[in-house]
Amino acid sequence: MYSIGERINGMFKSIGAAIREHNPEPIKEMARRQVAAGASCLDINVGPATAEPVAAMEWLVKTVREVTNLPLAIDATKPEVIAKGLEAAGPGSIINSTKGQQEMLDVFVPMAVKYDASLIALTIDENGIPRDADGRCEIALRVVASAIEHGLDTDRVMIDGVILPVNVTQPTAGHVLETIRNVKLLADPAPKTVLGLSNVSQGTTQRPLINRTYLVMALAAGLDAAIVDVTDTDLMDAMICAELLMNRAVYCDDFLRAYRS
Amino acid sequence: MYSIGERINGMFKSIGAAIREHNPEPIKEMARRQVAAGASCLDINVGPATAEPVAAMEWLVKTVREVTNLPLAIDATKPEVIAKGLEAAGPGSIINSTKGQQEMLDVFVPMAVKYDASLIALTIDENGIPRDADGRCEIALRVVASAIEHGLDTDRVMIDGVILPVNVTQPTAGHVLETIRNVKLLADPAPKTVLGLSNVSQGTTQRPLINRTYLVMALAAGLDAAIVDVTDTDLMDAMICAELLMNRAVYCDDFLRAYRS
Repeated sequence: MYSIGERINGMFKSIGAAIREHNPEPIKEMARRQVAAGASCLDINVGPATAEPVAAMEWLVKTVREVTNLPLAIDATKPEVIAKGLEAAGPGSIINSTKGQQEMLDVFVPMAVKYDASLIALTIDENGIPRDADGRCEIALRVVASAIEHGLDTDRVMIDGVILPVNVTQPTAGHVLETIRNVKLLADPAPKTVLGLSNVSQGTTQRPLINRTYLVMALAAGLDAAIVDVTDTDLMDAMICAELLMNRAVYCDDFLRAYRS
Repeated sequence: MYSIGERINGMFKSIGAAIREHNPEPIKEMARRQVAAGASCLDINVGPATAEPVAAMEWLVKTVREVTNLPLAIDATKPEVIAKGLEAAGPGSIINSTKGQQEMLDVFVPMAVKYDASLIALTIDENGIPRDADGRCEIALRVVASAIEHGLDTDRVMIDGVILPVNVTQPTAGHVLETIRNVKLLADPAPKTVLGLSNVSQGTTQRPLINRTYLVMALAAGLDAAIVDVTDTDLMDAMICAELLMNRAVYCDDFLRAYRS
């Protein structure tokens, strides 16, 4: 699975402070930790606590780039913040994220083409979050159509089916699994699927257990990528083991360590 | 999920000794532990170490019956051992198990009808274990046809897709998941699916992790029942959490404890 490390985010206290103080060390340290834990990509989010998000994003990306060449997922809502992050990060990055409204797709799909980036698209539009898998797939299809129109390869679209906390709405977990299975049928080459995992356990008493259990279920449904805490060893062990059982990694007695290195 | 506790089995050293010595206490204690851990049913297997398996099975079943009224899965290969176990256990038991050869079905399906029992059928026949899901479903269909012929309700057939150790054959885990999904389409009411879980991790270095990860994947594919070590708390936590995420149990902050009680 393509694992996108979620920890470089201004919402975390120590990272938020480091961004405000232009102190690179806590950021570099968190980047190194996530790389060592086996991240495929690092999410970069300046968080809410800065008055100049464009400059903060540029600084944050450059700081991370000093310690790793991994792909970066540029995580923001404002197009100008994302564009600056993509410019600083270089080709092969990921836009995180657009929603499915046509006017947003008309901004972010051409941006993905311009910066040679992949594009995470949430299955949310002007009507909110659909109630079921069909509604999610309708929005995904709109994203795919926009990708084809603008010349973005359909396998550089990453559909996020928008999981909600299981203590708020229990049927959603099943809807998102169905979405993961069905999105694969929307285009050839198939769009990728991604999940902002930790939302499933928001506000619950058993966050790590719920996170890793749902990740395994989503992997069994064909999930390609997830935004996760790669420093959660139990989560990564479950993920690696599920990959093995899906026959996407080769068994050896030391498979947990082999996968990470 | 319907959890069949695997621990009353003569293959375990202390249980084997208790059977040979006609010492009821270790057996009763293991039955109590599994009931307390949330088992839906207890598997009863006299193991290889007795010269008189029919008498041993009768004694073992009666011993367990002194501490619980849970359904019992009578686990043996010889029909006369199973028949004696069913007689001692009473209606609502499970035959564990038949294979798919017609001559075995002609023995065990009528036996299930006679004793008002469910029937676990392994997708193995005279040609061995099929290489893929289609081969497994072919055998499952033969079992279902035999059930219909003999008047056994099709939802009292429990198809076991025969998982093999992941270190021996990696594609099998996927084939069995596909079997679980497809078996549901073979009859109305749908046959149940069951898994002898621990075989997936036989001979590996990470048995508990592999067991619980595969159980979650199988539950996401629609698995109804599994023969498991219900005293493995991490395994049961994963199972309970998967049930929650499949919307088969209601969330509350104390959902792990609520499910067990």
